[in-house]
Amino acid sequence: MATPSTPILKDELDIVIPTIRNLDFLEQWRPFFQAYHLIIVQDGDPSKTINVPEGFDYELYNRNDINRILGPKASCISFKDSACRCFGYMVSKKKYIFTIDDDCFVAKDPTGKEINALEQHIKNLLCPSTPHFFNTLYDPYREGADFVRGYPFSMREGVKTAVSHGLWLNIPDYDAPTQLVKPRERNTRYVDSVMTIPKGTLFPMCGMNLAFDREVIGPAMYFGLMGDGQPIGRYDDMWAGWCTKVICDHLNLGIKTGLPYIWHSKASNPFVNLKKEYNGIFWQEEIVPFFQTATLSKDCTTVQACYIELAKQVKEKLSKIDPYFTKLADAMVTWIEAWDELNPTGENLAKLSISSKK
Amino acid sequence: MATPSTPILKDELDIVIPTIRNLDFLEQWRPFFQAYHLIIVQDGDPSKTINVPEGFDYELYNRNDINRILGPKASCISFKDSACRCFGYMVSKKKYIFTIDDDCFVAKDPTGKEINALEQHIKNLLCPSTPHFFNTLYDPYREGADFVRGYPFSMREGVKTAVSHGLWLNIPDYDAPTQLVKPRERNTRYVDSVMTIPKGTLFPMCGMNLAFDREVIGPAMYFGLMGDGQPIGRYDDMWAGWCTKVICDHLNLGIKTGLPYIWHSKASNPFVNLKKEYNGIFWQEEIVPFFQTATLSKDCTTVQACYIELAKQVKEKLSKIDPYFTKLADAMVTWIEAWDELNPTGENLAKLSISSKK
Repeated sequence: MATPSTPILKDELDIVIPTIRNLDFLEQWRPFFQAYHLIIVQDGDPSKTINVPEGFDYELYNRNDINRILGPKASCISFKDSACRCFGYMVSKKKYIFTIDDDCFVAKDPTGKEINALEQHIKNLLCPSTPHFFNTLYDPYREGADFVRGYPFSMREGVKTAVSHGLWLNIPDYDAPTQLVKPRERNTRYVDSVMTIPKGTLFPMCGMNLAFDREVIGPAMYFGLMGDGQPIGRYDDMWAGWCTKVICDHLNLGIKTGLPYIWHSKASNPFVNLKKEYNGIFWQEEIVPFFQTATLSKDCTTVQACYIELAKQVKEKLSKIDPYFTKLADAMVTWIEAWDELNPTGENLAKLSISSKK
Repeated sequence: MATPSTPILKDELDIVIPTIRNLDFLEQWRPFFQAYHLIIVQDGDPSKTINVPEGFDYELYNRNDINRILGPKASCISFKDSACRCFGYMVSKKKYIFTIDDDCFVAKDPTGKEINALEQHIKNLLCPSTPHFFNTLYDPYREGADFVRGYPFSMREGVKTAVSHGLWLNIPDYDAPTQLVKPRERNTRYVDSVMTIPKGTLFPMCGMNLAFDREVIGPAMYFGLMGDGQPIGRYDDMWAGWCTKVICDHLNLGIKTGLPYIWHSKASNPFVNLKKEYNGIFWQEEIVPFFQTATLSKDCTTVQACYIELAKQVKEKLSKIDPYFTKLADAMVTWIEAWDELNPTGENLAKLSISSKK
């Protein structure tokens, strides 16, 4: 199949970075990021100043800004956890989002060439996905590849790609128990492939190196209630991934994973991670089967409607695990309300106008 | 996760080769295959002599042998189509089968090292599969890899692997229309990965470079009615793949795809292929949805029982496409009868004894 050319999308993409420190890591990304607009979500103490290297075009939001902009609805945005990044998705006005952690650097491909991660994400997002049937030669739209013998022709148009999930060389994204057991394991294997996660299959979505079509799937990218005041951390991206996958399957949208790689420089502290994760490790044994069997009604034709329906099911079916899930389900609804307030569409405007007349 | 060591399995594996010509291609495979037993299924004119290079341990079956051994049941084995290879699976007495086409040679990895395809297949078959949840770093059991953060711990034991599907460098396995449109396309991308095809997802299984656990899934590996006297060809492995995947999903078995690569030397004639394939290209648009929604009853606890149940559904639901499917469904039943006759187990022996007393 023909590979689409890759427009730069300068006016259509924001880079969202959650951080608590100076953004020196941007120096290495300068050739790739400088043309883009950055949305920096400062976590932790809002009185602290975050330095951003010169020459970057950015807006920065700290906790005070989030509280000011969202008012009481700011309660849905996590504090002291990188889950706060999803505030950046909400305030962006662009079609695409690329989000990256501040301990991620430019990786090299096996020939030693620096990888332009953003360019690959854009390629992934502009190519269709193939969630309904597996192609053994991986992404059929890539140059030099195609659909193999036996791939039904009616399925070769694929579906719209909503999410591009990139991977990590060096420090792999392991949970605390695996970190503790294998402290020295490094990911050195460059797998030269992009593939679609099949329909009906969940995956662990990592927020470290992730891009998505905000117009198409944005409201599903809520990173939950994590960190300060919550009984769980480090499950923000997982939560978003489970919800997003169920909604993409329902709305016939695709999720790709594989290239691009970034260089993940530093393993986080496994003891601290274990403390954040232990509830999640336990709870996910029930959460995953819940999402594996979740179905949305045919009436849910927008991401917002799907998400509200999912929030209802979370409250009904997961609250028995822990009261936290009741709070989370409420926060999911608040998130959608806040999203619609900041991103008024024709439909939302009508709703807002009715509600203001009450 | 720890990679298991790879026993050689000399006494536990047969290599099955369908052919119509002298097996000169074995010279290149000598260092890798000579220790194993070959089952050669000679297709076409049985009076023709097939030369096998010296030093190989083999048994050879031509059409006369097949007719003699199976009697009237030989009708289920295709003639003038590589589908005849499945006769080799039936007469083998080994636990594992590796089947390869005679135009496939030893490929090289990116470092220039010759790939021992058989060794990789054995590795794949001895490692569990993970069909219930996607691991973004591919096979978690491979050295240097593991399950990533967010992968439920209860699923990390995986399930038994039944099939290892290898890929092809140089000539990709394309259908006739794609061959015609892209006559010069070659697969040069070495993707260094092995992965599990998720549960509920079908894939196009190619018989060119394929290994499986005969004891676990053998009776599902029927390559259908193709070639001489049939309205279809080149869908033998696809048919086996669809049936096998549905049965593996039902019995909680895994299918892996990816490494190893072989070097596929020669594209078959696209005009000839088109003649063989055109019905299949049309029919697969109904066959694939049939298999995507096929479910087997809980009572089907053996591969044979699953296969007989599937044959019944094929007759009921696909015969409306073409009378060919009634014939195929009957052949599926004949295949199982022949399999059980050649591979008597305690249960089969009891049945045979009852039937002979009638």
